[in-house]
Amino acid sequence: MQKAKEFIHMTRDEAAQAVAEFPVAILPIGATEQHGHHLPLGVDIFLAEGIARKLAERTGAVLLPTLPFGYSWVWRDIPGTVSLQQHHVEAVIKDVAHSVVRYGVKMLVLVNGHDANNTSMKYATRELADELDMPVIYLFYPNMEEIMAEFCESETWHGMIHACEFETSLMLALKPELVNVSKATREYPERPKLYGKSSISLGDLSKSGVYGDATKATAEKGEKMLNRFLDEMEQIILEAYK
Amino acid sequence: MQKAKEFIHMTRDEAAQAVAEFPVAILPIGATEQHGHHLPLGVDIFLAEGIARKLAERTGAVLLPTLPFGYSWVWRDIPGTVSLQQHHVEAVIKDVAHSVVRYGVKMLVLVNGHDANNTSMKYATRELADELDMPVIYLFYPNMEEIMAEFCESETWHGMIHACEFETSLMLALKPELVNVSKATREYPERPKLYGKSSISLGDLSKSGVYGDATKATAEKGEKMLNRFLDEMEQIILEAYK
Amino acid sequence: MQKAKEFIHMTRDEAAQAVAEFPVAILPIGATEQHGHHLPLGVDIFLAEGIARKLAERTGAVLLPTLPFGYSWVWRDIPGTVSLQQHHVEAVIKDVAHSVVRYGVKMLVLVNGHDANNTSMKYATRELADELDMPVIYLFYPNMEEIMAEFCESETWHGMIHACEFETSLMLALKPELVNVSKATREYPERPKLYGKSSISLGDLSKSGVYGDATKATAEKGEKMLNRFLDEMEQIILEAYK
Amino acid sequence: MQKAKEFIHMTRDEAAQAVAEFPVAILPIGATEQHGHHLPLGVDIFLAEGIARKLAERTGAVLLPTLPFGYSWVWRDIPGTVSLQQHHVEAVIKDVAHSVVRYGVKMLVLVNGHDANNTSMKYATRELADELDMPVIYLFYPNMEEIMAEFCESETWHGMIHACEFETSLMLALKPELVNVSKATREYPERPKLYGKSSISLGDLSKSGVYGDATKATAEKGEKMLNRFLDEMEQIILEAYK
Amino acid sequence: MQKAKEFIHMTRDEAAQAVAEFPVAILPIGATEQHGHHLPLGVDIFLAEGIARKLAERTGAVLLPTLPFGYSWVWRDIPGTVSLQQHHVEAVIKDVAHSVVRYGVKMLVLVNGHDANNTSMKYATRELADELDMPVIYLFYPNMEEIMAEFCESETWHGMIHACEFETSLMLALKPELVNVSKATREYPERPKLYGKSSISLGDLSKSGVYGDATKATAEKGEKMLNRFLDEMEQIILEAYK
Amino acid sequence: MQKAKEFIHMTRDEAAQAVAEFPVAILPIGATEQHGHHLPLGVDIFLAEGIARKLAERTGAVLLPTLPFGYSWVWRDIPGTVSLQQHHVEAVIKDVAHSVVRYGVKMLVLVNGHDANNTSMKYATRELADELDMPVIYLFYPNMEEIMAEFCESETWHGMIHACEFETSLMLALKPELVNVSKATREYPERPKLYGKSSISLGDLSKSGVYGDATKATAEKGEKMLNRFLDEMEQIILEAYK
Repeated sequence: MQKAKEFIHMTRDEAAQAVAEFPVAILPIGATEQHGHHLPLGVDIFLAEGIARKLAERTGAVLLPTLPFGYSWVWRDIPGTVSLQQHHVEAVIKDVAHSVVRYGVKMLVLVNGHDANNTSMKYATRELADELDMPVIYLFYPNMEEIMAEFCESETWHGMIHACEFETSLMLALKPELVNVSKATREYPERPKLYGKSSISLGDLSKSGVYGDATKATAEKGEKMLNRFLDEMEQIILEAYK
Repeated sequence: MQKAKEFIHMTRDEAAQAVAEFPVAILPIGATEQHGHHLPLGVDIFLAEGIARKLAERTGAVLLPTLPFGYSWVWRDIPGTVSLQQHHVEAVIKDVAHSVVRYGVKMLVLVNGHDANNTSMKYATRELADELDMPVIYLFYPNMEEIMAEFCESETWHGMIHACEFETSLMLALKPELVNVSKATREYPERPKLYGKSSISLGDLSKSGVYGDATKATAEKGEKMLNRFLDEMEQIILEAYK
Repeated sequence: MQKAKEFIHMTRDEAAQAVAEFPVAILPIGATEQHGHHLPLGVDIFLAEGIARKLAERTGAVLLPTLPFGYSWVWRDIPGTVSLQQHHVEAVIKDVAHSVVRYGVKMLVLVNGHDANNTSMKYATRELADELDMPVIYLFYPNMEEIMAEFCESETWHGMIHACEFETSLMLALKPELVNVSKATREYPERPKLYGKSSISLGDLSKSGVYGDATKATAEKGEKMLNRFLDEMEQIILEAYK
Repeated sequence: MQKAKEFIHMTRDEAAQAVAEFPVAILPIGATEQHGHHLPLGVDIFLAEGIARKLAERTGAVLLPTLPFGYSWVWRDIPGTVSLQQHHVEAVIKDVAHSVVRYGVKMLVLVNGHDANNTSMKYATRELADELDMPVIYLFYPNMEEIMAEFCESETWHGMIHACEFETSLMLALKPELVNVSKATREYPERPKLYGKSSISLGDLSKSGVYGDATKATAEKGEKMLNRFLDEMEQIILEAYK
Repeated sequence: MQKAKEFIHMTRDEAAQAVAEFPVAILPIGATEQHGHHLPLGVDIFLAEGIARKLAERTGAVLLPTLPFGYSWVWRDIPGTVSLQQHHVEAVIKDVAHSVVRYGVKMLVLVNGHDANNTSMKYATRELADELDMPVIYLFYPNMEEIMAEFCESETWHGMIHACEFETSLMLALKPELVNVSKATREYPERPKLYGKSSISLGDLSKSGVYGDATKATAEKGEKMLNRFLDEMEQIILEAYK
Repeated sequence: MQKAKEFIHMTRDEAAQAVAEFPVAILPIGATEQHGHHLPLGVDIFLAEGIARKLAERTGAVLLPTLPFGYSWVWRDIPGTVSLQQHHVEAVIKDVAHSVVRYGVKMLVLVNGHDANNTSMKYATRELADELDMPVIYLFYPNMEEIMAEFCESETWHGMIHACEFETSLMLALKPELVNVSKATREYPERPKLYGKSSISLGDLSKSGVYGDATKATAEKGEKMLNRFLDEMEQIILEAYK
C-alpha cells in the first residue's frame, strides 16, 4: 500500500504527476463540535481525515486537506462548537470542485465525518452536476446500518450516531490517545414529540452530549468496522471511476 | 510555556474551562496553492497553523482548527491549488466569529498565512464590528518589512512574499522535512505594465512559482524571524485583550 | 368538528377573529411531480392540503393556502414536474412565517406532503428560531414507520415512500377520483452503489416512477392511516401550543 | 370546449401527451391579502386561477397549480395577509420556467391576479429571456382600462383596482358564494401627497380595505368583462405561440 | 435663493453644518441611455441633477452627487447605454440611506430622472422603512399627467415619456446646448399586443428611440413645467419634513 | 488633442461612431468622503473624473459618467461621507462591463480616485475575465511611489495618500477653486498597534482627516504629477489595446 498523496505535502510538480496517475481527489469534511465528556471536539475531523487518508492510500487518489468546520447548529451553544451556515458548507464544497477540475481531476470524492453535512453535500453535488463535467460522489459510512448491526452491541438512539459506541470505537481505532474511556457514558434521552419537528434539536436533549452507549466501545470493533467501511468505499470509488 | 489548548483535542468540558481561563480564540487561515518546485502546496497552512499554535502556547488562547483553503485565484490553474471565492472566505470567517461568541469567547484572533486572504479578513472584521460585541483582530506577519529587512538577504519581488527566502526560511524552521532545498530557485520575473491593473496576475508571470530568491533561505533566519513575529503577535493580543 | 378556517375563504375580519380565537396557522407544502402511471402529479399537494384541512377542522387553527411547488430535483426531467431550488423553498417558508407573526399568530405549523421538502423546512425553522418570537413546527407523517408497519403489507423501497402502497392508499382515502387503480404498479428497482452518494437519484432508477408496491393500496388502509396521523398531529399541535 | 389540462390532476403520461399536443403552460399567480369586509383574502388566487383555467380550456394549454402568495407588502399588517419578498416572487417564477422547459414546454404564460406582482413578472421574464430559449408572457387583465370603462359605472381610485366594482364583479361571476354583498362598501380615501412617494401605501389609507365602489358590482358585469378578458388573452396566446 | 449645498463641493465641516441647519439630503438618480437622435445619453442625469439642484437651492437640503446609472434594460443594445441590474439599483440606494443616517440626516429624498428606476426606489424605500428610523421619499415628476396636459401639445405614447416633447422641453430649459433640435423627430410606433406582456420592450419598437413628438418641444414649455414640478416637490419635501 | 467623447453629452449615433472609431471605454470611479478641513468631499470624484477626461482626450476612448460613490467604510461617521458595501461596488462595475460589451466596446478602463476601491476593482476584473471576452484594466495612479518621490516633499503616512500633499496638489491643478489652502493642515497621527489588524481604521486616527502634510501642496507639483500619470496611463491603455 502506497503512502497517501496529500496535496499539502506535495509540490506542484508532484501534484501534477499524482493527478496524471490517478485523477481522483478526496476532500475530507469534518466538524468542530462537542462529542460528550470522553471525546474531543475534533472527532468528525479525525474520522473523516483518517478514513480519507486510508482511502487515498488504497486507491492512489490525491488527498485534499480537511474542511474542519461543518453545519453544527444543534450544538452551537456548547463550548468549542463552530457552526457554518449550511449554504456556506455547500459554497465551500462547490469552490473546491470548481478548483480541482481545472487541472485535470476527473472525479471528486467527499468523505464526510458529520451527519449534518450530508444534505449540504447532496445539494452541492446536484448543482455541480449541472455546472461541471466531473462527477462528484459523497460518502458517509456506506452500509452503516448493516455494519453497525454486525459489530456494535448497543442500540442507536433512533438511528443517530453521535459520541456513541460507534464513533467511540472508531476513535479508539484511529486516535486512541484522544479518547478518555473513563468518562464514556451512556445516554438515551427521551425523545420529545417535537424533536425533528421544531427547532428542538439534539443540542437540547442529551445532558452528556452522548447519544447511545459509549461504554461499549472498543478499539477492536472500531478497527473491524473501519476496514469494512474502507472496503466499501474503495469499491465505490473504483466502480465510479472507470 | 503551556501546551496549546487545541479545541479539536479537547472535550467540551475542557473547552469550557479553557475559554473561562482566557477567553480568546485563534483561527489560523491558510491556503492550498503552489509554492514552487521546492515547497509543498500547504505552506500557508503550515505557517499559519505553526505560528498560531505557538501563539496559543504563549498566551493561553484556545486554538481553532485551521481553515486550509483561501482565496488563491492567481494560482488556480496550477495543479494542487484550491481557491475559494473571496466572499466565501469572508462568510466562513464570519460564521466562526458568530459561533465562538455564543459561549463566552471575548476576542477572536485570525492568524493568516496567505497574503490574498488579508482583504477578506479586513472586510469580515469590519462587518463583524457591527454585528457582534466581540473584537476581532487579524494578523499577517506584523512588522514584516522591518523584520525581513533585518534577516533576509535577498530583495522581495515588489514587496511580494511567495515561496521566497522569507517563506522558505520559515518553513525550514517549522517544517524542514517538507522543504526540498535542492529545488529551491530564484526568480524575479519581469513585471508587465498591466500587472496589478488587469486580470494578469502572479499566476501568469513566474515560471517556477517562486517570487524572490528561495536559495538564500536558512532555518536559522526562519527561527529568528519566527520569534520576532511571535513576540509582536503576543504583544498585540495581550494589548488588545485587556 | 368545525369547518376549517381557510384564510382564502375568509375576510380580513373573519381572519382577525379566527386568529384571536386560536392563534395557530397551518401552511400545507406540496410538490408538483410525477407519481407513476396511476397517480396524478399533484399527490403531494392533495395529501398535504387534505391533512392540513382536517387538522384545521380538529384544532381550530387557521389554514393557509398550499404551496404547490417544492424541491423536486430528482424528477425534474419527467413531464409535469416543477422544482424550486431548495433555498427558495426555505425563502418562501420564511416569508410566510414573517407575515403571519405580524397580526398575532403565535405558532406556525408546516404540513408537508413531500419528503424532499423536509430539509428546507428544518433549515427555515432553525433560522426562524433566531429571527422570530414565534415557534414553528413542521410535520411530515409523524410516527410514519410504526403506522406503515401496522397497515401496509408491502415493503418500502429502502424506507422511501413514493407512489407506493402508502401514498396510493392515502390518495384513495382523500382523492379516489384521481387514482387510476388499473395502472398501479409495483417496482423495486435495484439500488446502485452510487445512489445517495452522487447525483444519481430516484429519477434515474424507477421506470414506472413508483417505489414500492402500489397494487396493495386500499382506501381502507388510507383512511386508517390518515386517522392515525391526524391523531398524532393534533396531539403534537396541542402540546406544542400551550 | 375541452376540459382544462391541469397538471395536478394528470399523470406523467398525460402530462407528456398534453405538452406534446400543445406545448404551452399557464402559471396562475395570486396573493393572499385583505380585500375589504365583503371579499375573501383569496380573491387574487380565485381570479388568477379561474381565468387561467378558462384560458387552458380555450387554448389547450396545460395548467400549472396556482402560486397562492405574492408581493403584498402594503397589506402586511392586516390579518390574513401573506407577503413574499418581491425577489422571492421572481425566484419562484424563474424556477417554474426553468422546470417546464426541460420537458418540451415551448412557451410559459403567467396569469396574474394581483397588481403588485406585475413588476416581479416583468423582471423575471426579462432575465429568463437571457437564460432560456423559451418565451415567457405575463398577463394581467389586458386592455383593462378600455374594458372597465365599458362595463363599470364607478370611477377607480386613481386607476387602482382593489376590492372595487371591478374585482367584486369578477368574483360574483367566478365565486359568488364567497362574496358577502351586504358588506360591500364604497371608499375613496384621500390620497396624501406622499402616497406613491414614500413608504406610505395602500395599507395606510383605506379604512375598509376597498379602493372604489364595490356596491356597484354585479355578476353580469363580471361575466361580460371576464369574457372580454378571455377573448383578449386567448388571442394573445395564440398570436404569441406560432 | 441660496446656492445648493452640494456635498462634493463642501468640506466635512461645511457638511456637518449644512446637515445641522436642515437635515434633509437629496440623491439624484439618473440613467445613461439612448434618447433619440437629438438628445444626449445623459438626459436622465441632467434632468434629475438639474431639478435636484434647484430643489436644494429652494429648500436648503444638502445635495448628494448623482447616481449616473439606472435600470436601462430596454435600451441595452443601443450604443452608449449602461444598465445596472435592478436589485443593484436598490442596493446602492439603500447603502446611501444607511450612510447619511449615521451623521444626522433626518430625511432622504430621491429625485429620479428615469422612469424605470421607480420600482427600485419603491422597493428600497419600503425595505428601509423597516431598517432605519429615517423616512425616505422618492420623486419622479409629481403631478406629471396634469402638468403635461397643461403644457404639452402632443400626445404621449401610452403615457410613456421618453425623448419626447416633455423631456426635450425640459432639456431645452436646463441644458439647451445639448439638444440638437434639427434632429428632433416624432415617432409613435405601433404597440404590439405583446408589449408589456413579454420581453418585447421599448427597445424593440421605436426606430428613432423617441416615443412621442419631440418636434413640439420648446424651452418655454420646459421652463414652465420645471417650475411647476419644483413647486410641487418643494411643497412635498417641506410637508414631509416637519 | 481632441475633446473627450463623453457618453452623457453624445447621442446614440455619436456613441456608435465613437465606439467604432476607438472601442475603448473609460469609467471613472470616485468616492464621497471627508478629505480634511481644506478639501471638499468630492476629491476622489474630481480627480478620477479629471484624469479620465484627459485620458479620453489623449486616447480617443469614450468616457462614461463617474460613479460618485465607493467603499468609504473608514470615514462613514464623518458628515458627508457615503459608503457603498464593497460587493456593491463590484456589482456596479460588473454591470457596466456587461453593458458596454454589448455594443462593441473592446476594452474597459477603470480610472479610480479612491484607494479603498482598488480591491473591488481587482475582484470585479477577475470575475469578468471569466464572464466576458473583453479585457478590463483598472488604474490608480500608476507608478505612484516613484512619481510622488520625485515631486512631493513630505513623507506619506505609511504609504497612505489621503488629503495630503499629493491629493491636495492634484486638486490645486484640477479644481483649485475647491481648495481652501488656508485650512490645509499637517497630521501624522500615531499608528496604533491594532491599525490594519482590527476594525480600528483611518477614521479613528486623524483628527483633521488629513494623513500627511497638505501644507506642502502646490498647483505646480500637481500639474507635473498629473502629466506624468497621464503619460503612464496613456501608454498603458495603448499597449493594452492593440
